[in-house]
Order: sequence, then structure tokens, then C-alpha cells
Amino acid sequence: MEIYLDNSATTRCLPEAAEVMTRILTEDYGNPSSLHNKGLAGENYIRHARETVAKSIKAKEKEIVFTSGGTESNNLAIFGAARANRRTGMHVITTAVEHPSVANPFGALADEGYDVTYLPVDRKGVVDCEMLRESLRPDTVLVSMMHVNNEVGAIEPVEEAAAIVHEAAPKAVFHVDAIQSFGKLALFPGRAGIDLLSVSGHKLHGPKGSGFLFIREGVKVAPQILGGGHERLMRSGTENVPAIAGLGVAVEFMTKNLPEHQRKLYAIKKRLVEGLESIDGISLNGPTGEDGAPQIVSATVSGVRAEVMLHALEDRGIYVSAGSACSSHKPGISKTLAAIGLKGDALEQTVRFSTSVFTTEEEIDAAVAAMRDLVPMLRKYRRR
Amino acid sequence: MEIYLDNSATTRCLPEAAEVMTRILTEDYGNPSSLHNKGLAGENYIRHARETVAKSIKAKEKEIVFTSGGTESNNLAIFGAARANRRTGMHVITTAVEHPSVANPFGALADEGYDVTYLPVDRKGVVDCEMLRESLRPDTVLVSMMHVNNEVGAIEPVEEAAAIVHEAAPKAVFHVDAIQSFGKLALFPGRAGIDLLSVSGHKLHGPKGSGFLFIREGVKVAPQILGGGHERLMRSGTENVPAIAGLGVAVEFMTKNLPEHQRKLYAIKKRLVEGLESIDGISLNGPTGEDGAPQIVSATVSGVRAEVMLHALEDRGIYVSAGSACSSHKPGISKTLAAIGLKGDALEQTVRFSTSVFTTEEEIDAAVAAMRDLVPMLRKYRRR
Repeated sequence: MEIYLDNSATTRCLPEAAEVMTRILTEDYGNPSSLHNKGLAGENYIRHARETVAKSIKAKEKEIVFTSGGTESNNLAIFGAARANRRTGMHVITTAVEHPSVANPFGALADEGYDVTYLPVDRKGVVDCEMLRESLRPDTVLVSMMHVNNEVGAIEPVEEAAAIVHEAAPKAVFHVDAIQSFGKLALFPGRAGIDLLSVSGHKLHGPKGSGFLFIREGVKVAPQILGGGHERLMRSGTENVPAIAGLGVAVEFMTKNLPEHQRKLYAIKKRLVEGLESIDGISLNGPTGEDGAPQIVSATVSGVRAEVMLHALEDRGIYVSAGSACSSHKPGISKTLAAIGLKGDALEQTVRFSTSVFTTEEEIDAAVAAMRDLVPMLRKYRRR
Repeated sequence: MEIYLDNSATTRCLPEAAEVMTRILTEDYGNPSSLHNKGLAGENYIRHARETVAKSIKAKEKEIVFTSGGTESNNLAIFGAARANRRTGMHVITTAVEHPSVANPFGALADEGYDVTYLPVDRKGVVDCEMLRESLRPDTVLVSMMHVNNEVGAIEPVEEAAAIVHEAAPKAVFHVDAIQSFGKLALFPGRAGIDLLSVSGHKLHGPKGSGFLFIREGVKVAPQILGGGHERLMRSGTENVPAIAGLGVAVEFMTKNLPEHQRKLYAIKKRLVEGLESIDGISLNGPTGEDGAPQIVSATVSGVRAEVMLHALEDRGIYVSAGSACSSHKPGISKTLAAIGLKGDALEQTVRFSTSVFTTEEEIDAAVAAMRDLVPMLRKYRRR
């Protein structure tokens, strides 16, 4: 038995996506830049994927830049927007709970002389928009905020934030890291006032090594990888046609069925939340209802280290994460958990369950049963 | 019938590589950063690929950084080395015949205030090492030279160049773009005095979206994509496990059989060269024997535009390239062809044949027969 509840770390690729990838790798393998039919075939896969992706967020095709994944998308957005608008100003804003692929580029901007403001969050992990408003300045050129927090599932008020940014700092570019939300929550960047939007393929049943950045028409972003001028000069390098096509398949699956997926995920979440809340010694973090992301439940198990909990569950074929699994092999202290007010041991006693549309009620019941069984036992043997 | 002679643009992925990729995408899909077994499975694929790649160039495993491809490898090498060593000096050297993924980063360095020296080449496309020696200065921090030219197949004297660089400018980092040579010519960066070496997977029957940069232990390179600290902090982003594993399969295939492949490719090249030379109106560029790359033959067809030639061959199922196909949809004027002394119309009358180890003698004979048939016909109808 294998119960995979670590979908915020990565997901199983859809077999339909893997299939089209194999076809491209071994048959339709032309370089889209080649002028012959074999190249044209590659180009057609990309055009089709670009149409699918653009349509899924009601964007123009030319507003989509394919990248090698979410981290590259975030780097392109942040370095690209900051550097392209450097002469307008050097003040940038982000939050205290961003993923390292956002937080570390902001750290690098600070080293380059930018003034960085970090917005705090409340106990649920949500940013206060009034603090955003107060932080905006005439020289603010970039604001970056995630849509869904990867550790506790908080939904950030990105639409309200967009309105505030554009009103109070009309020259600032507003970036949203939608890596955990895309395909789970509807968000249309054009309508929402979002200038840049990052998405990763492998978080939504697409292939690793795929992703895109939405760049609203007219927004200035400096390319970060230079060469043959692919992706309208925004991202050079032979297009990763199989990954792009696989991403297209996954985006279509996730967005076409979004309302149904959401209902299913929230029902599963409710079941998981109720199950975990009934176990002594467990407290949940972040929003536990439909005010939070449909796929993430963060649980602190008093007296049990997260890694111990993780491995005990693993012995029963249940896969969860300790911390976010996004920092390579460093479970350690989570900035997000600290930012929402967890203290001391609790920071190291928190596991994350993240579901997918393929997660079943039976799997949730089995996971809850395992926790009900394991938690009292592990708490008994905790270090004193 | 399909005769694919555009292998320097991209190659067919090995079915064995595609197979392991499918297995990883749909079964062993864990995130290597995850602490459970599913993550460990992913990590094991990467470890195995890293061992294979390191062994293939007699390097240490920690000297290999996986990237999203050749363009990213070149960007990381050039921007990374220049920026990490900026305080040592701001003089950098490259050649007049580099691929855009090298030439354009150097252009950007020039915009950042670096002083860039471009080394010319002779009529075969080969750099003069004495000019390199004369160009080196105490403030030279980076020298970048391709191993095999992608348009005319010239082999650059990278080992001699390495020795000169380290002797005359001991602080300079020496980078080699081995994207066209890896798997076709043996090159061991440690022994050859190469500090950084770029390789792309899809040029050697691996998947698109894969590649690596060899970084000699102790050489300072600033990472260009920041986040969770993957690849020993040198390249953040969830590892593209399927692509990395596929790359490993391809690297093993290409390097294990290198001597046999080389013999085969040079025999094929000889056949192609002799065939083309026997056709009136064709002149070949670059080294046509074993002094050049085994897989590239560049032919200027007097009086026939390259695109016309390309499409006439395509009608017979034969795929070649006009220009390098590395610049997205811009056949236009080739810097390399101009640098080796081609002038006027000849610049737009040059096609490239690039073979692979899967190319057969029959395919070469068919291609030569098609040229023998088409060239006089097309020359007759040329614009006067």
C-alpha cells in the first residue's frame, strides 16, 4: 500500500502527459528553430501548449514564457523586473513567508543594494494589506506575494494587494507566485491586476522541468538566460518541447476540471482535518476550512519530532513531509511556521499533508487511523 | 523515407532514455528533497546519473551541476565566473565564432562594463593561440572557447589554449562550450586544464531540457538561479529527475562507445564529403577531414539560397539546416561563416549536414544523390 500525501512537494505526472512526451522524445524530436517539417512539428506542440496555458488564465499567447520550472519562473520574475526597472527605483517588497525561490532572489537584491521590505503575516499566515499599503513608496518597483503558502495553505489576498499596489505605486510591478495554487484555485492575472505570475508543472501532475511565467503585455522584464532569443527573447535555449507539451496536457486537465477538483479536495480536506483534530496532542496550523488552500493541512504533533512522525508514517506506506521539502535536504526551522507564531519545539514537530485530486477518502481514513495509532505511542516515547 | 541530417540542431532521444523517463514521471516521481522513500528513489536516479556523467569526463561527482540544458550551462559558466571574479578584474575573452548562448552573455557583460576581447579565426574556423596569448592581461578573469564549432565543425585548440591561459593569466577561469563535441570527441577537463565545461543532453540523444556544467573543484562561480539550494547551491529548483536520468543513459551510451562511434562518423563524413565535392557548384567550409568534427559538413551551393536548398531536400524527406538553427527562426547571416571569410551571396547559400551514429551509408548516398539531382536544377533557375 502506498498513500502519497506529499503532493505539494511534487505530483505524479499524468500518464497522458508522459505519453505525449515519449512520442516527442523519440519521434517528433525536431528542434522548433529548424526550418523543416521536423522542426515545424516541434513548433506545433509548443504552439498548442501555449494556447492551452494562455486560455487557462485568460491571457494572450505572447504573455506566456515557458521556463524550466517554478524556481526559474520566480527568479526571472524577480531579478527580471527589479533589474529592468532599476532606474525607476530600488525599493522592493515581499512577505515573510515566501518560498526560498522568492526569498533568496530578494536576499540577492538586498546584496545588490536594493531596499527590501518584508511584510509579516497573521497567525493563519495571511498578509495584512494595510501593512502593504503603508510600505509602498514612490520608488517601489516590485511587490512579490505568493498566492497559496506551501507550508500552511494560507491564501494570500493577491487581488486586494494588486489593487493597492497599482493605486499607491503605479510604477511597481506586482508578481504572484502561484506555484501552489495554480489548478487548485481560479486566478486570472489580467482581471486580478497581476503583472507576473509563476507556475510550476510538476506541482500539477505535469513533468518536472516545466513551468511558465505570465508576463503582462507591456511589463518590462529583463531576460536572465541569453542566447538564441527563444520565447520572444525572454528565455533562450532550445525549447524543452516534451516538457512543454506535457505541461499543456496537465494544465488542461487541472483547469478544465477545476470546480469539480476543488469540491473533491475540500471534502477530502474536511475529512482529514476532522480526523486529525480528534487526535489528542495534534494542533493544526493555517486555515483549516475553505478559507485555506484545498490541498494542504499542516499539523503540529506535540512531543513528536516531525522526522520521527514522517518515518513512522512511511513505515506504513504513507508519505508526508516535514517542513516544506523545497529546501534541498534541510528540514530545519521553517520561516513560515515561525512567522505564524509557532515557537520552540512546535517548530520541529510539524508535518504537512498535501493531497491531490487522485487522493481517495479511503487513503485519508487510513492516514488518520495511522496517526491515531502512532501519535500516542510516539508521544509516550518522546524525549523528556 | 526520412533522412535526418540535422543532428547538430537536435537528436532523437534514445528509447532507453525515454523509457526510464516515463517510469520516473509516472511511478518513481518523488521529489529528491523529500525525506521519505519516494524522495530517496528520485535521489538515487540523480546520484546514478551524476556518477555516470562524472566518470565519463574523469571528474568528481561534486564537480557536476545539472542544468536545464546547454544554454543555461553556458550562461551559468559565463555570468557565474565573470560575476564571482569581478573584483579580480573585468577583462574577458571569447572568440568570433561562438554560439549565441555564449556570444550574447558576453554582449551583456560588455553592457555591464566588462572589457571583451573577441579572437578571430582562420579560414577553417580555428582560433590562433598566439592571438590568445597576446590578448591575456593581468585583469583577465574569464576565457571562453567552444570545442567544436556548430556551423563548420572546426575543432578549437582548447588544450593548448588552457595551457596558455593558466600560464599567462593564472587568475583567469577557462570555459569550454563542449555542446557539439561531447560524446563525439574525447575531452577530459581535469587533464586538459579546463575549469568549466558545458554540455547539452539533446545534442547527444538525451532529452531536451537536460545538460550539465562541469565546475572544477575550487573554481568560483556565482549561482544564477537561487532558491532551495539544490546542486550544492549552484542551481536551485526541484531536480528534473527524469531528464537527468535520461541524460545519464545517453552519456553512458555515447561515451562507452566513443571510439567505435568516431570511426563510424568519420567514415560517413568521408563518404558525404567526397559525394558533395564531386558535384559542380558546391564548395565545402571548415575542416573536411579528421582534423574537423566527425559529424558536421558545411556546404556552400553557389547560386542557390540555403532555404531553397533546404526545402527542396525536405521535399525528398531529407532534413538539413540553413545556418545553425540555434537562433530561433533567424537563419540570416552567420557570424561564423563571415568570420571564416565567406562573403556576399555565399553567406546565404550555405547548408549544414550533421550526422549521428544512427546515420547509415545508404542515407548518405541518398542525400548525395538528391544533391546531385537538385543542385544543377536549382542553379539553373537561380535569380540572375
